[in-house]
Amino acid sequence: MSNSQHVLADVVGALFSEYASKRGIGKVADYIPALAKVNPQQFGVAVQTLEDEKLSYGDAQVRFSIQSISKLFAFTMAFAERGENIWERLGKEPSGTSFNSLFQLEAENGIPRNPFINAGAMVITDMLLDDFNDPIFELLAFLHNLSGCNTIDYDEEVYRSELAYGTRNAALCYLMKSFGNIHHSVRQVLDLYFMQCAIRMSCTELAQAAQFLACRGVNPLTNTEFLTVSQTKRTNALMLTTGLYNEAGDFAFRVGIPAKSGVGGGIVGLIPGELTIATWAPGLNALGNSQLGIDFLEEFTTRTGLSIF
Amino acid sequence: MSNSQHVLADVVGALFSEYASKRGIGKVADYIPALAKVNPQQFGVAVQTLEDEKLSYGDAQVRFSIQSISKLFAFTMAFAERGENIWERLGKEPSGTSFNSLFQLEAENGIPRNPFINAGAMVITDMLLDDFNDPIFELLAFLHNLSGCNTIDYDEEVYRSELAYGTRNAALCYLMKSFGNIHHSVRQVLDLYFMQCAIRMSCTELAQAAQFLACRGVNPLTNTEFLTVSQTKRTNALMLTTGLYNEAGDFAFRVGIPAKSGVGGGIVGLIPGELTIATWAPGLNALGNSQLGIDFLEEFTTRTGLSIF
Amino acid sequence: MSNSQHVLADVVGALFSEYASKRGIGKVADYIPALAKVNPQQFGVAVQTLEDEKLSYGDAQVRFSIQSISKLFAFTMAFAERGENIWERLGKEPSGTSFNSLFQLEAENGIPRNPFINAGAMVITDMLLDDFNDPIFELLAFLHNLSGCNTIDYDEEVYRSELAYGTRNAALCYLMKSFGNIHHSVRQVLDLYFMQCAIRMSCTELAQAAQFLACRGVNPLTNTEFLTVSQTKRTNALMLTTGLYNEAGDFAFRVGIPAKSGVGGGIVGLIPGELTIATWAPGLNALGNSQLGIDFLEEFTTRTGLSIF
Amino acid sequence: MSNSQHVLADVVGALFSEYASKRGIGKVADYIPALAKVNPQQFGVAVQTLEDEKLSYGDAQVRFSIQSISKLFAFTMAFAERGENIWERLGKEPSGTSFNSLFQLEAENGIPRNPFINAGAMVITDMLLDDFNDPIFELLAFLHNLSGCNTIDYDEEVYRSELAYGTRNAALCYLMKSFGNIHHSVRQVLDLYFMQCAIRMSCTELAQAAQFLACRGVNPLTNTEFLTVSQTKRTNALMLTTGLYNEAGDFAFRVGIPAKSGVGGGIVGLIPGELTIATWAPGLNALGNSQLGIDFLEEFTTRTGLSIF
Repeated sequence: MSNSQHVLADVVGALFSEYASKRGIGKVADYIPALAKVNPQQFGVAVQTLEDEKLSYGDAQVRFSIQSISKLFAFTMAFAERGENIWERLGKEPSGTSFNSLFQLEAENGIPRNPFINAGAMVITDMLLDDFNDPIFELLAFLHNLSGCNTIDYDEEVYRSELAYGTRNAALCYLMKSFGNIHHSVRQVLDLYFMQCAIRMSCTELAQAAQFLACRGVNPLTNTEFLTVSQTKRTNALMLTTGLYNEAGDFAFRVGIPAKSGVGGGIVGLIPGELTIATWAPGLNALGNSQLGIDFLEEFTTRTGLSIF
Repeated sequence: MSNSQHVLADVVGALFSEYASKRGIGKVADYIPALAKVNPQQFGVAVQTLEDEKLSYGDAQVRFSIQSISKLFAFTMAFAERGENIWERLGKEPSGTSFNSLFQLEAENGIPRNPFINAGAMVITDMLLDDFNDPIFELLAFLHNLSGCNTIDYDEEVYRSELAYGTRNAALCYLMKSFGNIHHSVRQVLDLYFMQCAIRMSCTELAQAAQFLACRGVNPLTNTEFLTVSQTKRTNALMLTTGLYNEAGDFAFRVGIPAKSGVGGGIVGLIPGELTIATWAPGLNALGNSQLGIDFLEEFTTRTGLSIF
Repeated sequence: MSNSQHVLADVVGALFSEYASKRGIGKVADYIPALAKVNPQQFGVAVQTLEDEKLSYGDAQVRFSIQSISKLFAFTMAFAERGENIWERLGKEPSGTSFNSLFQLEAENGIPRNPFINAGAMVITDMLLDDFNDPIFELLAFLHNLSGCNTIDYDEEVYRSELAYGTRNAALCYLMKSFGNIHHSVRQVLDLYFMQCAIRMSCTELAQAAQFLACRGVNPLTNTEFLTVSQTKRTNALMLTTGLYNEAGDFAFRVGIPAKSGVGGGIVGLIPGELTIATWAPGLNALGNSQLGIDFLEEFTTRTGLSIF
Repeated sequence: MSNSQHVLADVVGALFSEYASKRGIGKVADYIPALAKVNPQQFGVAVQTLEDEKLSYGDAQVRFSIQSISKLFAFTMAFAERGENIWERLGKEPSGTSFNSLFQLEAENGIPRNPFINAGAMVITDMLLDDFNDPIFELLAFLHNLSGCNTIDYDEEVYRSELAYGTRNAALCYLMKSFGNIHHSVRQVLDLYFMQCAIRMSCTELAQAAQFLACRGVNPLTNTEFLTVSQTKRTNALMLTTGLYNEAGDFAFRVGIPAKSGVGGGIVGLIPGELTIATWAPGLNALGNSQLGIDFLEEFTTRTGLSIF
């Protein structure tokens, strides 16, 4: 690809128009009422280069429930705080199929496969409860800092709804606690975990917030290093191998960039040294990832020639 | 075997003396402090024939924590109340190995294998919460009625201790709830479940209480039918195939009678039309059943020639 | 039940007439062509008491492919030969669900759960290859001896058909060999295994052949002890807990007698000290057992009151 | 990193000297005698840049058994031949833990997780048997073409040894055949599969042979396109997510480059647009990958700053 910003805008703009006609494909998450009522016709894309070119399309400024994308930010907070010690209670490997999530956790003595599956994110949450006096406040402050926008908050209704329906996550958390891998009460962990999931951000905010992962760990808004170069590379590697649940391999194959998705329909990805990109379309595929988002990103890397491989 | 009562007393008496020298084998359950402090040297045996011969040896009058033996009584209460409808939420098959208990429950949509594993007993508990206003009161009343002894109660310390350490059971219960197979709150279910487990009875009380299973469903103390003939046979079949956790097959092979065990070290068994027998020795084998109890029962059926096969 | 033979004949005769109207229910095994072409309308029942009353109905004299019922006879041959040593390479526990048969075998280091699942029967076959110069000849001779009929043989077409389609059994056998639990070549083991499965017998022959299991191990035709009293009881216990694949618990619950089934549609069962019974109806239920056979046997034990429980 | 070739040679040379002192760590594969006798003190490294700088150290010219590295070349042959159609019989996802390899294959109807686990490579082998008259000849010709060395061949002793001990692979292959996912005979598939595994190449040959994966699919020796740009990226993505068995996530995290390993102790990796690298040290870690090789590669990417992330 030519590095000309003009060309990037042309390519992405044309691509957005093309894929916008497919709005509504997939199935909106309906396991809680608060998510089920989201309008499936929404579609937003934001791209931000390291030269600070910012492109946004469609509903890129609309905030949505970031859900599992919050696992990326919670993980980086714990990683920055604890370094490689976090791996005593967590793995770095893909999780295999969803049908055996509890099975793996049981067979592997309550050590979750990686920080981007629910069980792993709960262990990270348990760490944050140790490391910060008011972890949800700190996590929001971190996001304010990364995105430059201090109105980012969690949605009270989604949070309460998740808590009420979160029996499966409670099972995972109690199972880990039975192995001694959860230190706080299950109630405390689920409480903070569901607050994180309920955070609302827009595509443009996500593209800005992920910049540090494309910039060797440095937040370009403040010019401060949040992760070391090595930690940043490692986080990106982890996103590539485990960021899209059981579709991570297929996503790496088709799209080829580190990314993290959420059941709210958002995906945030990046090409180190080049750019960050965030998409949002609420309709999910059978594996729980935004169907239009993945299709768009595949074509984006194909047409621009941008890829890490 | 000769049916002479004199002979039975001779055989069992000699057998008890012989096995009493092995008191203390196995390992006392130590997952909660209240159980760990039980004196491992205790050993009791009670036999009660249908002709009302009652034999008791050693610590047969000492009450102990019946633990999973309570599952037998809770199950029969629900079975008497609901009949074959209970199988909509429960299986009747052995559970396979312990290492995949959560796995099976997940793979089989939250339907436990049988009422004598923990998950199955929690479903029964959930049913009792529907069927009775004060289910622990009713269960104790049932046991008073069966045993003729109205001081049987649960142990407050053991109950609280189980609740505090019951994270794995909480995981099982939440998992079933996530499949819709638990109707009450997990807290309510665990509360009642652990009260049941904490009930204390002696060998002589257990041998009396199990008489109805050897008597075609009729409680001989009151001459009232609690289960039908068919239900009684079915309960006995279920005990044979699933009553000793993952050791049920081996126990059937070696001992050959329907029985139910508990981690408190008790076992209650019966030969339909002949007798009931209860043993208690706190030391457990690797599969969580009373080691001395099983050894004694194997020799008991071998020497008396009593067996269902 | 009255012990009058007259009454037994009346009850079973009426029962047969009633259930004969349901001929054809279930689905004939079709994994090999040789079995798929069996006429599903056939139905036979044979009962033989220890007082030598012999009752037979319908197609009780027609020979059919005994399939897994052969596991019972192969097991008793190995058990008689080796005694309790066979358990070094085999378990005695139920196998859990079919969906994890290879999984269990792998997780448990190539030790099959019991001798009545395919993997376990292949280990028994491997033992017979060690213990006898011409094991299929010996097994047939054993059956001739037990049944009093020396024309019992295996079906060449079924045997070849099984070999040709036996990829899954080959997988099981290679897996066990990889753990060192198969000593002969997989080819030799499968060859003998499929010959056994292809043996053809009738209900009357099966009811006669199983008599020793109801007679404390003694073959009444020759008055010779084949198994000890203890071995006989143990074999019966094993049949009860594991004889009907993953339906063993339900069968024990509903029917309540030791039995062994085969995908050819046969079931042979017994009540120790009373009688043997064999049924044949080719239509299978979802778990691979004769649907009409199980229904008939349930009603048989209900109406006669005969049961081990 | 500076792109100066001089600097690269300096860094790698210093690194090699440092790690050469650790020769012998890990445990040589001993599942077949032919591999067990390899001298564990050997260590070779070859680096080849796209500007054709070739660096080699230690035993870089010694040929060794490439084992699973052959899966990379067999896969690319099938991928070039069949394109995206190969995914009808294969997945692209990581395989989860080794303890459930047969379990996954069974649960997922005989469709292997990816082409780099044994089961997946056997499906690829089955495809090659369809696509080529003499597939081992074609595969060797392909390697001659890629490496510029026409003496590369397979080792007859290793091939025969693998066949003789390959019971577990036979189990996998029969299981897939039982699901219809192997079209040729298991014997044919295993035969070709083990020939591939027994191919011998050196580090310098591997570094040369992998060049096309760093060069957008073009073999620089012949200037012909073997894979399209898109296919090349996809193959690299697949290597990153699944190339090191169950250690792929950890390797991506620590080393951060697409790579494929074998139990012979070889690893071949690449940085697209930059270079290829091959290491060989026979001692394996607990997960079956060359321990010294991984350690060296981690430090190589750290010191040079080369990484895809």
